[in-house]
Amino acid sequence: MRILGIDPGYATIGFGLIEAQRQQARMITYGAITTPAGLPLSRRLYQIGTDMEELIAQLKPDCISIEELFFNTNLTTGIAVAHGRGVLLYAAEKSGIPLYEYTPSQVKIAVTGYGKAEKRQVMDMTRRLLHLKATPKPDDAADALALALCHARSFTSQLPKQGEARKTI
Amino acid sequence: MRILGIDPGYATIGFGLIEAQRQQARMITYGAITTPAGLPLSRRLYQIGTDMEELIAQLKPDCISIEELFFNTNLTTGIAVAHGRGVLLYAAEKSGIPLYEYTPSQVKIAVTGYGKAEKRQVMDMTRRLLHLKATPKPDDAADALALALCHARSFTSQLPKQGEARKTI
Repeated sequence: MRILGIDPGYATIGFGLIEAQRQQARMITYGAITTPAGLPLSRRLYQIGTDMEELIAQLKPDCISIEELFFNTNLTTGIAVAHGRGVLLYAAEKSGIPLYEYTPSQVKIAVTGYGKAEKRQVMDMTRRLLHLKATPKPDDAADALALALCHARSFTSQLPKQGEARKTI
Repeated sequence: MRILGIDPGYATIGFGLIEAQRQQARMITYGAITTPAGLPLSRRLYQIGTDMEELIAQLKPDCISIEELFFNTNLTTGIAVAHGRGVLLYAAEKSGIPLYEYTPSQVKIAVTGYGKAEKRQVMDMTRRLLHLKATPKPDDAADALALALCHARSFTSQLPKQGEARKTI
């Protein structure tokens, strides 16, 4: 099963693709979509949408795992991230590929076994679980790989049905 | 000049199209895109994106006027509205039609002359300026018409260049 993890944002959007079989997972590719700081938000959103659509078409994942929005920074940044995440959800839904959402805490539990793990611990476990020599850069890409791993591990242990992890507002 | 006003949201998105010439404006059409409450946010966002793209293609505006996000409600609603607004900005940008953003206060000043006007006053002035017998329903559509009027009045009085009203983050 090819799982695409997405770490939402508007300046840098991390992505990471893994292949997961039973309890084993390997990294296929990772990276980040970035948008220029000088552009109006609407243009950055347009770029995010088109780049993500293209990426999904290229990588052909079986499912997508995206982080739920968690406000630990300031409100202005959070609003802009929510704009970006809206476009990412739109692109994911447009592809017709099953979409799952996880909170930062769910990712920490799935990857390290501890819901209040430090960022460094999550990154280190992500590196180990994917048998990588170094932690992927940028951090957004490492976060995206952790999201993909989170889905792989949640899926094999709990077998949630499609859409079960989705949040309805 | 055909101006499409958009009142952003995720449950109800108001729209209103006006034709503005010098100081005169007339309403062409208005309405709202609505999404079912039971659907996951990602599906609602997908519907918002596709409906708005179709609407812009049908209505063929010369420019689009959309409200900037203003947090006067709770954070959860605000985050969902920001997701919806992200998709609306994406759809607007995709159309290639010039896009302008106005704060609620700018709309109030343009329509009533007073930045702290009551919602009722804005609606009443919108109705009068467009020579309508009754205030358009739902409120989201009336708000969208006010946004279109705001751009018409800002444009004729100040002649802002394309993109000048945009906010860069």
